Amino acid sequence: MSHIDNAAVSAHLSHVRIVMVNTTLPANIGSALRAMKTMGLSKLVLVSPKTYPHPDINALAAGATDLIDQIEIVETLEDAIKDCHIVFGTSARSRTIPWPLLDARPAAEKSLKAVIDDKQQVAVIFGREDRGLTNEELALANFHVTIPVNTDYGVLNVAQAIQIICYEMRMAAMDKMGKEVNPEATMHVTETEDMQWDEPLVTHEQMEQFYPHIEKMLAEIEFLDPKNPRLLPLRLRRLFGRIQLDRMEYHLLRGIFSRVQALNNGTWKQSKSEK
Amino acid sequence: MSHIDNAAVSAHLSHVRIVMVNTTLPANIGSALRAMKTMGLSKLVLVSPKTYPHPDINALAAGATDLIDQIEIVETLEDAIKDCHIVFGTSARSRTIPWPLLDARPAAEKSLKAVIDDKQQVAVIFGREDRGLTNEELALANFHVTIPVNTDYGVLNVAQAIQIICYEMRMAAMDKMGKEVNPEATMHVTETEDMQWDEPLVTHEQMEQFYPHIEKMLAEIEFLDPKNPRLLPLRLRRLFGRIQLDRMEYHLLRGIFSRVQALNNGTWKQSKSEK
Repeated sequence: MSHIDNAAVSAHLSHVRIVMVNTTLPANIGSALRAMKTMGLSKLVLVSPKTYPHPDINALAAGATDLIDQIEIVETLEDAIKDCHIVFGTSARSRTIPWPLLDARPAAEKSLKAVIDDKQQVAVIFGREDRGLTNEELALANFHVTIPVNTDYGVLNVAQAIQIICYEMRMAAMDKMGKEVNPEATMHVTETEDMQWDEPLVTHEQMEQFYPHIEKMLAEIEFLDPKNPRLLPLRLRRLFGRIQLDRMEYHLLRGIFSRVQALNNGTWKQSKSEK
Repeated sequence: MSHIDNAAVSAHLSHVRIVMVNTTLPANIGSALRAMKTMGLSKLVLVSPKTYPHPDINALAAGATDLIDQIEIVETLEDAIKDCHIVFGTSARSRTIPWPLLDARPAAEKSLKAVIDDKQQVAVIFGREDRGLTNEELALANFHVTIPVNTDYGVLNVAQAIQIICYEMRMAAMDKMGKEVNPEATMHVTETEDMQWDEPLVTHEQMEQFYPHIEKMLAEIEFLDPKNPRLLPLRLRRLFGRIQLDRMEYHLLRGIFSRVQALNNGTWKQSKSEK
């Protein structure tokens, strides 16, 4: 793959951001930057880091300190991912209800396909050192991603996990670019992967208006009990999160929800008398 | 890949040894053990380590200290690899004379093929922290192996390099064992097939009852004009067709459609008077 342009790989990988939530140890932030730069990634977003700035970040980031200037600090996870099209949450454990789960390699392939073919933004979220991501945070992701490890031993620390995810992102970028350069080398591509899409896909931020809308509508028609919603909101997120709605579909569905609401509260002028 | 037996993966990976030459920092030996155990490797050979034993080894190997007892200490690199069939030397730089050079991934695939198909022993040699392996040491290897990194930035440290090599060894073992178990699955596996799910996915036949239901509901609330449906039915098929609904989601959505229908035709006993 020596023909692949290193700068072009980095340019693609600049659309894949690493998000670290409530990180406690500055050393892990520094190690993350180093792991990222080694693999050509450049965008780190910190959600309410416990300690920032800190000299350990600079020390561990040795040689990657230029990435420190590009760090973005935000208050909430939603802020970190609002302009993203695909969001991965890293999770070692299985949760209340299973989420679409990918191994690191297919997750990276999916990410670079989205970046290179569709100019999308991708985020991979890493949780706290001691207890990872909460169920609520994991529910914000379209997919969960896991690194296949020795199940008799346990888990990677956050810096090691970032290292491997970044490595797979780089491999996926080089792999995809190699295929671009030499179309004969393209392996079997499924119909879905080949498909040209006619509408832009919606962002995470737009979906964060979608879920309250469907929940409100379902509450109004008493399909969902707001006092005891049980797993319904989570199931709706899982369902519509993995579909990646395009703009037309998004407005179509929200139009249906609004129509149902209007019908229910009597503002839709349907001639009931005919029935 | 959940069908793959973790103990069997580890058994295969016990034939892949990591060899560290003249290591200076005990912490790197500890980190190597941890990286190895996380991925299921167990055999570390140290060639004339500068400092051994040392409490930093135990500290950094946290949870992998059982591998310390299995460490083999030898005087020369030849001793470390004499019973091996395939020897890889890790090298970041190109050397005086070109050597067969593989990226980490094909090197791991080659290794696990040799282990599983031919019961061979494999070694991967890592050099000194400051200057790697000598030309003489590299010449003892059958192949050189490199990790594709950002060429504008430089190299991984030895612990990081071991981490990635061990990861690729594990992936190659799982990949090869997956192929052994189910030869039909050797080709491209789609993302959906990769996912672990709690509910069975619905069949095409069930979806053929789903589309008429949503269309009928939308016609009843006058969102869709049956005489002139335009692209709406097609868009709904494209949307719900690519989602691959599971059984629970299927019944959930059809339950919502039925509720809307009942509301609309007055058979749902909602106390409108309250509004």
